[in-house]
This record gives sequence, structure tokens and C-alpha cells, in this order.
Amino acid sequence: MAKSQISIYVGCLACSVILNVLLLSNYVYVGGKGELSWSRRAAEEAEAVAAVSCSGHGRAYLDGLVVDGSPVCECNSCFEGPDCSQFAPDCVADADGGDPLFLEPFWIRNAASSAMLVAGWHRMSYTFTNQSLISRLLEDHIRKLHTTVGNAVTQGRFIVFGAGSTQLLNAAVHALSPDNSSAPARVVASFPFYPVYQLQTDFFRSVNFQFRGDASLWKNKSDCTLNFIEFVTSPNNPDGQLKKAVLQGPHVKTIHDHAYYWPHFTAIPAPADEDLMIFTLSKLTGHAGTRLGWALIKDEALYQRMSTYVKMNILGVSKDTQLRALKLLKVALEGSGKEIFEFGYTTMKERWERLSDALSVSKRFSIQEFAPQYCTFFKTVRGPSPAYAWLKCEREEDKECYTVLKEAGIIGREGNLHGAETSYVRLSLLKSKDDFDALLHQINKLVAQEDGTKSII
Amino acid sequence: MAKSQISIYVGCLACSVILNVLLLSNYVYVGGKGELSWSRRAAEEAEAVAAVSCSGHGRAYLDGLVVDGSPVCECNSCFEGPDCSQFAPDCVADADGGDPLFLEPFWIRNAASSAMLVAGWHRMSYTFTNQSLISRLLEDHIRKLHTTVGNAVTQGRFIVFGAGSTQLLNAAVHALSPDNSSAPARVVASFPFYPVYQLQTDFFRSVNFQFRGDASLWKNKSDCTLNFIEFVTSPNNPDGQLKKAVLQGPHVKTIHDHAYYWPHFTAIPAPADEDLMIFTLSKLTGHAGTRLGWALIKDEALYQRMSTYVKMNILGVSKDTQLRALKLLKVALEGSGKEIFEFGYTTMKERWERLSDALSVSKRFSIQEFAPQYCTFFKTVRGPSPAYAWLKCEREEDKECYTVLKEAGIIGREGNLHGAETSYVRLSLLKSKDDFDALLHQINKLVAQEDGTKSII
Repeated sequence: MAKSQISIYVGCLACSVILNVLLLSNYVYVGGKGELSWSRRAAEEAEAVAAVSCSGHGRAYLDGLVVDGSPVCECNSCFEGPDCSQFAPDCVADADGGDPLFLEPFWIRNAASSAMLVAGWHRMSYTFTNQSLISRLLEDHIRKLHTTVGNAVTQGRFIVFGAGSTQLLNAAVHALSPDNSSAPARVVASFPFYPVYQLQTDFFRSVNFQFRGDASLWKNKSDCTLNFIEFVTSPNNPDGQLKKAVLQGPHVKTIHDHAYYWPHFTAIPAPADEDLMIFTLSKLTGHAGTRLGWALIKDEALYQRMSTYVKMNILGVSKDTQLRALKLLKVALEGSGKEIFEFGYTTMKERWERLSDALSVSKRFSIQEFAPQYCTFFKTVRGPSPAYAWLKCEREEDKECYTVLKEAGIIGREGNLHGAETSYVRLSLLKSKDDFDALLHQINKLVAQEDGTKSII
Repeated sequence: MAKSQISIYVGCLACSVILNVLLLSNYVYVGGKGELSWSRRAAEEAEAVAAVSCSGHGRAYLDGLVVDGSPVCECNSCFEGPDCSQFAPDCVADADGGDPLFLEPFWIRNAASSAMLVAGWHRMSYTFTNQSLISRLLEDHIRKLHTTVGNAVTQGRFIVFGAGSTQLLNAAVHALSPDNSSAPARVVASFPFYPVYQLQTDFFRSVNFQFRGDASLWKNKSDCTLNFIEFVTSPNNPDGQLKKAVLQGPHVKTIHDHAYYWPHFTAIPAPADEDLMIFTLSKLTGHAGTRLGWALIKDEALYQRMSTYVKMNILGVSKDTQLRALKLLKVALEGSGKEIFEFGYTTMKERWERLSDALSVSKRFSIQEFAPQYCTFFKTVRGPSPAYAWLKCEREEDKECYTVLKEAGIIGREGNLHGAETSYVRLSLLKSKDDFDALLHQINKLVAQEDGTKSII
């Protein structure tokens, strides 16, 4: 009995020792390679905030309000309550603005690869070590992405970064304006156009430039000696069409705003190859809050002038912003960009189709049309997926279209702000799913009323 | 024997089981509360880069170059080699620029509390949920810090954020200039002054404002109807003196640039209480690369105009930048700011004393003098700790002082850039320890030569 007892003890001891060895080896492993020290607290903070449940209709943020020790949910439009679970039925659909939140789910899906941890001592200097204001690695990644997507030629181009393309628009106008001319350069854009061009040019009242309206009006007058700067937005904001410059001539300079020239929003027929092209992170990865844009510039003197603008204005783009953009572009480049652009295109195409379907039965409202086009990135003919619907109220009595929609619980952007008739309104399709769902809900109601009215008559 | 054998087995088993329980409980703990999921990879990446040894004379960064899978050390001035361990003996001391790297060791010391982890989906929108471009929490922390330090009155003030104070300087000039005046506002500063005021005002050539030099020259002419905008820099850049406005009158507007009004650089005799005060993160926490400045503004209309400038210019400060500033200010506020300001003051005071000692035996070079002053923050009379030395070459034949220093291996900033004589040079004292050591080394050599020359004569 004592012998068998001993065997049992020995057996138990052996098992226990083996378990100890296993646990210890794991402990040593965790304590070695995998154990975090100074970064752990920040990682835990971020995970705790991310774990706050906002019912899929809101989000808690690291820099959000904290009540009773808990981060507060910030709810999407049309949702409320402490966990954003309550739908507000009389809610107005806000389809104004260009917040590209349609990409948020992509980043949640890629949480591990897109997170970044910034040390307290990260890049405290004004400049990178080569005295540049620009991250060399980020510049490389931008060039690589353009080559991968095939939407812009970067060879033989200099790159300037700005705090969003917004800053670079004015930097370009400033740099393209002659310094000592008797007349200020005439800044124009073909209508309908992105209103910031005018607002900004008017606001930064310079002796060197002045906004002068619709490019088309100057078409037959541009062969004289007047200096023109034409904004060409392609795809266009608001209507999504691919555009070419209207004005030509020795005294015409052109700024190509390619904010939306990504497979999310348009077919890419060929790489853009213009002298001055402006892009923005906002409409590429969806990070509008991360203020980063870039200009691809052929002419070295122009590059120097635009660099000086950014330096004089803000002493370069924040290093934190450049680091974040680098992280995001690394993820965007995974699998040659297939994942992010498939996600973006599929989302935007589906929204466009649902809106088109809803409006297809309407005689009161119409939206712009697109011809299917071959996309060199997807290597196929593809349908439309624009960032905005350019809606027209067709009835004579509806010519204040913005008001018609507003009364129906939809906030768009007035056509006249874009230099068009008031019978047009821009509707944003690239915001969050909740925003789009609210818009579609109100559109469906509006179109249903139209049918009802018809049937009564 | 069997009995004693059994006792031994039982004893061993008991020990082993206790170890099992301990290890398992730890395993469960690590696997439960403490385990990280999506944030782990980012944290590991950051720690791996931080662990690269650069001999204390350089640093590897997350967005730095990577060679053969290893992040590359970026070396401080005067150090080279793959791990920055080689001193370059003929190295020039670069005392130009205002990179506030003297605070870097403070952030390394506070690694855990100052690290932040940014999720891929953090604040993608242009605005915070209240449609503001400004983080409410950051604004609160800024107000709290001013109250804690006692260097500015924030009650009854609006706050605007800019991409560094650089942007806010021009935003202020723009906002203070009358819109439809026949004559542009005259922008002035009392000399010696910070050259960016002139460079920026000249660069953004507006119909509304123009740089017109030294404020003192307009002193007796300012009671007429001309519009003046005076920059008052206190403590002054380059000479560190506390300053008051030179011009007074109904048509004079004043911009108080308080970039250096922190206990690192000066005694705080009383909270600043002016109508328009500008501060910057750069000279407070040392994060010059994180472009964030703020203006405290009494007048609501002026606040609106400056806000519009930032909106039109860059659509608000990057959310990443605002998050980082918030994290840093939280650390700065720990212990009522004692730790960061003690560190900053002690470092800068010691540098000033070492430079003063080195130059005390010189008849060829002099630096500015400061009277000891009571500091309401430290609650004691304290000595000087300026950001810059304002060095004068005293000899007639040395009146091109910048050249004299350059030939001695010191790069300063020419006095005439600051609106002073060429016999003055600004020497930066707030850069890294390596920068300061190199400067002191060259200064000592220069002063020793002077003695040598004397003894030969």
C-alpha cells in the first residue's frame, strides 16, 4: 500500500513539476520578449476607452469627456442616450459637410495594424535630422501609393506637405501669383465649384491675387496678357465628374485639386500627370481630423515658393500628424491597396445605388449621371461611387431646392454656394452609415409623398 | 524509511502545488485584466525603437529610416557613427535656432505617463462632436495650467488654437487690421525683435497690413489716426527681458507674444492680463515639432476673426496634435507643475551660469544682464535662466560679430536679423545638452585665446 501510495505521490509530483515547468517557461517568455514596460499604461488606457460600448452608433475617445471615471459616448447623428442606443425618430438628416466617416469601419477592422504609440520624447525638434520639415519615409510611402494605385505620376515631382489640402490651395495661389505685377492674378474655377476656393482667396486679401468667378466666362479672353490661376477639381466637387482645364495660354497657371481622385470615388482612367497636383489624406484614408495634404510639383521654383509658404505659415506639418499618416499609409499599402479601396468603393457604390434606386421613381428630383468607365486600378469597367449627389429639384415651384429638402428633414448644401442655380443641392454620401441611413430614410419618405400626391391627383 | 520517504514526497508535492497555484494565479491575472489585444503590436513597436542604443547622443524614431531591419540612430550635433558614440572633434557648435530640446530628458524620465496610443479610428472627423475645431478638454487643461503657474489670466478670455504660435501671429495681424481702411495697418515691434514678425508680415502681402519697423521710432507719432499693431515679446526674443508696449492710443492694437513666459526662462512677477496673449507648446513642454499654440483673447469679435483665420487656413489644428498636447499637459500639471518647471529652470539656470562664468574673464565678449526678481511661482527671488544669450562683440574690429564667432566654430544668429547692430549675436541655450556642451567648449577655447593674446602682449 505504501508502495502504491508512493507511486501516486510520485505521479502527482511529476505532473505538478511538469505544470510548473510549463507555467514558468511561459512566464519567462511573457516576462522576456513580450512584456511591456513604459508603453503598457498608454496601451491599457486606449483599450479601456475603445471597450466602452456605444451601441455601434457612437464612440468614446481618449480626449473625450469623462463622467464618474467613465469615458462618455459621443453619439452619431440621430442617436442619443448614454450608450447611443436611442434612435431619435424626428431627427434631421445632415448631408452637409464632407466628413469621410464611411472609412471608419475599415480602421476598426484593422485595429492592430493601424494603432500607433507615441513616446513623450518623439520628434520634439522643429525639423527632421536633415533639417527638413517633411518625413522622408512618409514622402516615400506617398510616392509608392500613387504608383500602386496608378492615379498620379510622381517621377520628376517635388512634394510639399500642408496642414490639409486646404492650406495647400492657398499656398498654391500665393506661389503662382506674380509678385510685382500691376494687376493681381485672376483666380477662377469652372462652375459648379468647391466654394473654399473663393472663400479662401477673398479672405486672405492679397495685393497679388483676386477671385474672379467662373473660368468659362474668361475662355475667349484668356489669350491676352492677364494672369490667370484656374482651379481644376477632378473628380469635381460637387458633381463628381472628371474635369479638364478650361483656360489655356502662356499666362494661365492651373492647380489640379485631386482630393477625390481615388478608387473609392471614381474610376482611374490614367495617372494624372499635371504640373501641380494636390491630394489630401482626408479623402484617401478618411482621416479629415488629421490635417495632412500634399502637392506634387514639377517646377522647382514653385516647389520652393510653396515650401516657404508652409514654413512662414505654420513651420511645417506637426510631426505627430506625419507619423500618423505614415502608419495609415502603411496599412493602406497592404495587399497593394486592394483592401482599403475595395472597402471604400463597395461602400460608396452601394450607397449610390440605394440613393439612385430611391430616386428612380421620382419625377420631382434628379441626380447626376455617370457613364461606366474602365478603371486601371480595378482592371475592370466600373459603375459610379461619387462622394456627393448633385441633386436637382426639377419642378419650377421647387427652385429653392435647399428649402424644399430642409422642410423634409434633409440638410444639404445650397447649389448657389457652388456657383450653380438654387435648384441644385449637394448631398454628402461619404459620412457615417448612420448619416447615410438617415438621409435615405428621409429621401424615401419624400419620394413616397410625391407618389401619394400623384395618386390623389 | 518508506514513511520518511512519503513525508519528503508529500512535502515536495505541497511545495510544487503551491508554486502551481502562484504561477496559475499570476497567469490568470496577466491573461485577464492586464492582457492587451489590438494595442500590443503598436506598444511593442514603440518599445523596440526606444530600446535602440544611441549612446545617449542620439535617438531612433518610429518614423526614422530602417536599415537591415533595425531602426537607425539619428545623432545629435557633434556625434556620429552607427550608435552616435563617436565625438567629432572639429565640430561646429550650432547655437542658431530655438529647438527646445533641453526638456527631452524630462520626457524620457516620464516615459510611462507621457506615452499615448492612438487608435486607427481616433477622431477621423473634421470637428469634435460639438462642431468645434478645439478639444474642450485641452482648453480646460490650458486654463488650469495658466492658473497653476500664475502666468496669465484666463478668466473672461476666449481661446483659439493654431498650428504653433507662428500661425497665430499672422492670424492676429490679419484679425487686427481694419478691413476697409485707405491705409494698411502699420505692424511694428521694439528692436531687438523676433524676425518672424517682419518675415511673415512681408510674406503674406496683404492690402490690409504692412511691416513698418521699430516701434520706438513711431512713439511720438502714434497719437494720430494711423492704425498700429505692435508686437510685444515678453520675455523678449532675443534678449530675455520682460517688456511692455511702447505705443499707446486709440488706434494702437497690441499682440503680446508670451512664448517664453514660463518659469523655465524667467521669473513670473504677476499673471499677464493683456487683451491678446499668445503662447506655444514648443517653449512650454519642449515639443516644437508638435505644432500647437494658443491665443487668449478678451474681445469676442477678435476671437471670431482669429478663429475664422485658422479655419480658412487649415480647417483647425490636427486632432492628433491636440491629443498629444493634452497628454503632455496632464503630465506638466502633475504636482502643480513643480516637476517640469523645476527641471526646466534648473537646467537653464545652470547653463546660463556656466556661460556667464566662461565669459566673466573676457573683455572681448559680453552678454546681457538680469536683475534677480521675485517669482510668484517658485515663491522666491531667483536668478536668470534665459533661452538665449544676447552676446556682444565689444571690440571695434569685431563688429561683424557673427563672422568672428563663425570663424571660432560657433554658429549664432546675426544681430541685424533682430534689428540690432551686427556687433550682436543671439546664441541659443535651450537646445540639447550636446549642443550646449559644444557651444561652451568653443566659447572656452575662444576666451582662452583672448587670454593667450593678452599674455603675449
